[in-house]
Amino acid sequence: MSLVGESFLSSDQLTEKDIDQIFSRASLFKTEFEKKKRIDHLIKSEGLSHKVLALVFSEPSTRTRMSFQVAGARLGMRSVALDNPQNASISKGETLEDTFRNIAAMMPDIMVVRYNSNIDADATIKDLPCPIISGGIGSSEHPTQALLDAFTIKEFRGKVKGERVLIVGDVLHSRVANSNLILLRAMGAEVAYCAPAQFEPKNDAWKGVQSFTNLKEATEWATVLMALRVQKERHAGENVGFSMAEYRESFRIGGDQLQNFRSDGILLHPGPVIRGVEFSAFVLNDKRCKVLDQVTNGVFVRAALISIMLGLEVQHA
Amino acid sequence: MSLVGESFLSSDQLTEKDIDQIFSRASLFKTEFEKKKRIDHLIKSEGLSHKVLALVFSEPSTRTRMSFQVAGARLGMRSVALDNPQNASISKGETLEDTFRNIAAMMPDIMVVRYNSNIDADATIKDLPCPIISGGIGSSEHPTQALLDAFTIKEFRGKVKGERVLIVGDVLHSRVANSNLILLRAMGAEVAYCAPAQFEPKNDAWKGVQSFTNLKEATEWATVLMALRVQKERHAGENVGFSMAEYRESFRIGGDQLQNFRSDGILLHPGPVIRGVEFSAFVLNDKRCKVLDQVTNGVFVRAALISIMLGLEVQHA
Amino acid sequence: MSLVGESFLSSDQLTEKDIDQIFSRASLFKTEFEKKKRIDHLIKSEGLSHKVLALVFSEPSTRTRMSFQVAGARLGMRSVALDNPQNASISKGETLEDTFRNIAAMMPDIMVVRYNSNIDADATIKDLPCPIISGGIGSSEHPTQALLDAFTIKEFRGKVKGERVLIVGDVLHSRVANSNLILLRAMGAEVAYCAPAQFEPKNDAWKGVQSFTNLKEATEWATVLMALRVQKERHAGENVGFSMAEYRESFRIGGDQLQNFRSDGILLHPGPVIRGVEFSAFVLNDKRCKVLDQVTNGVFVRAALISIMLGLEVQHA
Repeated sequence: MSLVGESFLSSDQLTEKDIDQIFSRASLFKTEFEKKKRIDHLIKSEGLSHKVLALVFSEPSTRTRMSFQVAGARLGMRSVALDNPQNASISKGETLEDTFRNIAAMMPDIMVVRYNSNIDADATIKDLPCPIISGGIGSSEHPTQALLDAFTIKEFRGKVKGERVLIVGDVLHSRVANSNLILLRAMGAEVAYCAPAQFEPKNDAWKGVQSFTNLKEATEWATVLMALRVQKERHAGENVGFSMAEYRESFRIGGDQLQNFRSDGILLHPGPVIRGVEFSAFVLNDKRCKVLDQVTNGVFVRAALISIMLGLEVQHA
Repeated sequence: MSLVGESFLSSDQLTEKDIDQIFSRASLFKTEFEKKKRIDHLIKSEGLSHKVLALVFSEPSTRTRMSFQVAGARLGMRSVALDNPQNASISKGETLEDTFRNIAAMMPDIMVVRYNSNIDADATIKDLPCPIISGGIGSSEHPTQALLDAFTIKEFRGKVKGERVLIVGDVLHSRVANSNLILLRAMGAEVAYCAPAQFEPKNDAWKGVQSFTNLKEATEWATVLMALRVQKERHAGENVGFSMAEYRESFRIGGDQLQNFRSDGILLHPGPVIRGVEFSAFVLNDKRCKVLDQVTNGVFVRAALISIMLGLEVQHA
Repeated sequence: MSLVGESFLSSDQLTEKDIDQIFSRASLFKTEFEKKKRIDHLIKSEGLSHKVLALVFSEPSTRTRMSFQVAGARLGMRSVALDNPQNASISKGETLEDTFRNIAAMMPDIMVVRYNSNIDADATIKDLPCPIISGGIGSSEHPTQALLDAFTIKEFRGKVKGERVLIVGDVLHSRVANSNLILLRAMGAEVAYCAPAQFEPKNDAWKGVQSFTNLKEATEWATVLMALRVQKERHAGENVGFSMAEYRESFRIGGDQLQNFRSDGILLHPGPVIRGVEFSAFVLNDKRCKVLDQVTNGVFVRAALISIMLGLEVQHA
């Protein structure tokens, strides 16, 4: 299925051809931006200044919302954002799915949404009059994060196929981990995880995925170390059963782990990083740490995705 | 009085010629957008990308703020929004009217404001150095909502003149009802209301307006059913005197009322709809319910209004 | 040092040539805007619609954020704003300096920041991959405010050199006062202050600066009266030692002070003004009060600064 005019909600929608197209365009954008500080002239179009990207984020976001807005701006589009609808229409009694229906009725060219688990909203966004991009939905998926992660792996490791990607931490609550599992395996990578028992993933997709209990062994195995944020806001009502100090003791990636990690490996994290919990400050200064490269790549990957969904073609400069 | 360069604060400013111009332009925009997904090329101008729409909303808004921003973006303008100034300058001790004076001093091309009843602000916005559009002021008026409502009536009923519009619910606190009463009667419609005693309108404009106590009879009379949100945030200190369950019993429009309503009638609501209070979920799925069409039309009506206030002319494509 | 491609964090970075260039360009912009309601056509460039101004404000702002956004919009740029990151990434455990690093990694053309005193952030913003403009940092500096203040003095007093500028009020906590002291003295003005003992400035820059204890004498001395907001939010843990009523008694500028003030003098205030505390309502209506002119000038001064930092040249219309 082509992405043109469709919604993008899950990594599993992407064919090999889609991924190639997104990555090749993101790469063109990044290279051209480094040279000319702009990418809009690469789009075959009379200008996108009439195009509207709407963003409706009912969970906090810094990176993802800003990244979509910068991506849209670099293409020449305009963005309009509704943060925290719970402070406006939802506080007056509107449901989240009705908020989505209303913003979609304003006919934006694309609408990006983020929200916590909500089966009514899940059903609604499949049936709206404009294409939707998931900006992260509950604990299920965050597919543009997976795209930028895979793009970053390809950039620094040369390829995704055959890479050994270790996901460390709160896998259970991570939509990033779910989207990455699907995408990275489709691209031929091996995925494994290392998590405290309480954070082990439970859904079917993770059945049979290799897991490590010892971070040292896991680190020696991996070519890519992807740490996840401990998502305290999704632990409501759960007895996590260990302290942050115990978590750090076994799952924080610090100087010791770096010594066991291959010199040409890379470290990733979807952000925000909680310094001292998932990574030591030392790790963030290591040249193998590509956390800010992920952020830079996110803009170009999202610009590529948006332009493809809008059916736009590019020309080489 | 022409709208060019003037503020738009009340439905009663509109001459018949103004209304014709706004509706004809909104209709042109909507038709062209359906064909080409853009309207900016209809404006006779070298481009509006230097034009600035400022929005200062000191009450929560989803639909109205986003609709103005999308309308501005579709014309090619830029918008800058200040939501909840009470969290910024007002928390430091500035008055709302001084906030308006300050933003107006930045010389936006148009400033859209929303705020709760405030006589100092009412006086101030009449004397600012840029044109103002009311995005809803206290319980007094919300004139762009009335315009999009009338436009939607005309679209689906063919005309406004002679239509019988029933306004149901919390009329007392509704700026939408006030603006609609003025505009719809000026356009030749009959307006009536059906409200609990506690929500009956008290200001002079409503003297002599037909009212119904029985929703069944009222529904049989009407060609247009316009339900209003029960505005709990404006009931502070008032003893409403009945429960939401009692309200629903007598004033909720549900399947029963629909059976009494003419098959070619339409249902409207300014939003946000509180499902199960003003409308049953069943009503929202009825083909006569035009709530999302109102939202779509809002963008084109506001784009028409803004472009007229800016003195811009249009060309047919 | 040229401003092109550099960050702008302190008034003391500005050479006489820089100041001349900023003021001459701001003046060109203002004059042209008064004639044509636009300034973008003065920029020698194929258009700036692909340029991105990012704003990250972790302290409340009305004037400064909106002013930068309007300035960017008038130039034809797009802006993306992150207000209150403490509600998003920082609430999840990210440090403010990591938030800055992340937004900078999205490669905006310029990033404007505001935050409370934070030495880690101070160090970080000196080493980011995009130029930074201070939009006000803790109690240290707010250099674009000083620029617009000096521009306003020049506009209404004809020059800055030789002017006698009296700063009244909470000098101790004022980043505006610090930036103005540096800039105005560099431009040849005399600066003095009049403040309660508890609000006297303590840092080295203020050593030897003339001070008045009597507002009447001070007012007679001055050609420019600059009142400061009493910044209660920065008094945490301090025993200010007097009541607001006592403050008003001695330091509020009202009708009495105006009588002692020269008829061709001007009154300034960075805003928000707390009516009745720093100025009486009477003062705000005096024709010598240039508070809203400061706001208007702020847009043109910031547009000039941004365009110079981006290395853009202007042409006369």
